[in-house]
Amino acid sequence: MIKVVIIGGGNVAYHLTSCLLKNKHIELIQVFNRSLDKIQYLKNKTLITNNLSELKEADIYIISVSDDAISKLSSSLNLQNKLVVHTSGSVAMNELQSKSRKGVFYLLQTFSKEKKIDFNTIPICIEAETDKDLKLLKTLAKSISKNIYHINSEQRKGIHVGAVFVNNFVNHLYHIGYEICKENKVPFEILHPLIQETASKIVELTPFEAQTGPAKRNDTKTIQKHIAMLPKNQQEIYTLLTKSISKTYE
Amino acid sequence: MIKVVIIGGGNVAYHLTSCLLKNKHIELIQVFNRSLDKIQYLKNKTLITNNLSELKEADIYIISVSDDAISKLSSSLNLQNKLVVHTSGSVAMNELQSKSRKGVFYLLQTFSKEKKIDFNTIPICIEAETDKDLKLLKTLAKSISKNIYHINSEQRKGIHVGAVFVNNFVNHLYHIGYEICKENKVPFEILHPLIQETASKIVELTPFEAQTGPAKRNDTKTIQKHIAMLPKNQQEIYTLLTKSISKTYE
Repeated sequence: MIKVVIIGGGNVAYHLTSCLLKNKHIELIQVFNRSLDKIQYLKNKTLITNNLSELKEADIYIISVSDDAISKLSSSLNLQNKLVVHTSGSVAMNELQSKSRKGVFYLLQTFSKEKKIDFNTIPICIEAETDKDLKLLKTLAKSISKNIYHINSEQRKGIHVGAVFVNNFVNHLYHIGYEICKENKVPFEILHPLIQETASKIVELTPFEAQTGPAKRNDTKTIQKHIAMLPKNQQEIYTLLTKSISKTYE
Repeated sequence: MIKVVIIGGGNVAYHLTSCLLKNKHIELIQVFNRSLDKIQYLKNKTLITNNLSELKEADIYIISVSDDAISKLSSSLNLQNKLVVHTSGSVAMNELQSKSRKGVFYLLQTFSKEKKIDFNTIPICIEAETDKDLKLLKTLAKSISKNIYHINSEQRKGIHVGAVFVNNFVNHLYHIGYEICKENKVPFEILHPLIQETASKIVELTPFEAQTGPAKRNDTKTIQKHIAMLPKNQQEIYTLLTKSISKTYE
């Protein structure tokens, strides 16, 4: 049974903790967080601490803190011959400063505390310095999800930018759709089926094939009508994305 | 039984035709298209014609052609005391030039010929000049979908712009994600679960609540790293959307 310690209490750590507690192949032996308050809810389920020198013996230490804090936190760890990994999309493996073995365990998903998540399909991007550690991370990953990828630090940085486009930016366009519905006194739910279909379409077609609408068919009349209806901030976004779609289909 | 004639052979007409042919409450008595070739596949299922003067008697005539063609086509119709509707999101009801009764039957969904679609959840936005015609359109709509909305022309134009943001623009961001994956020699499938989760998240949370990522938390270090990695076209989009997200959470 793989013994794991989780270091951190943010959204990723929260969901990963909850996932590992239910996992019969993993023993989550401890969770660390600077503020004990935030992990107090775990006290009857596993050990908790806010003191790095109190970390218990484990096979893998998973650092799941903000990108900026990874380097400093890892340098404070006094763990010899242990595997220490972080869960960040944009931080290279060698930014870990621990004297121990290094690796990455990046969960390619969006996590909000309020939204339950099915780990089974989450792509887990793993990286390690040695084949042996890669194998260990693979065993851990396989006990959680069926989508495991061996990804190096450069590729991971690329994927992370891609994730910003298809998640953060997409969600912001949903937000604009929400605002437009409010403006027109129509419930946002009216756009839900379109949003779901847009997402499910690209499982069967490439996004290039799936595209429709005025920008693709260069329907300048409709485009002009739309732009005239929008406030300035939305006009800028509409114009830039329309231009970019047009170029794609030139 | 409501008798329907469909005028047009594009993506919407294609899917609507196929839906109505299977519908036991509707009699699809004829399909018109300028080019007979495009609707030849229907010849054993319903009447087909490329001559507007040959249109058969029906209760509802559904014009499903490009926005630009609606006005002219409707003016060529010689149908007295019949209900003529179009299926466009951005054309007002009174742009119909037929001498007959007018209405709108807007299917708020993205249609590609290659992708099957479940009509049952498609929001259908209906509009008519009289309560009687609205009732008739409601009966037709209810036989197809459970999501019926009574929407006026102004609201519909707004919704259509919203649809461009959450569909066309979102799909273009998927396309950029696809390009980034290709660039990094990673299969695009790695982003699929994130794309699906991003879409399903906003059924439970508002997009405002669902947002995560560097732009929201004003993580300028990550933002700068990302921008440095991108080609110019993607840089512009990244910068503008990041600015817009930041403003939303100021």
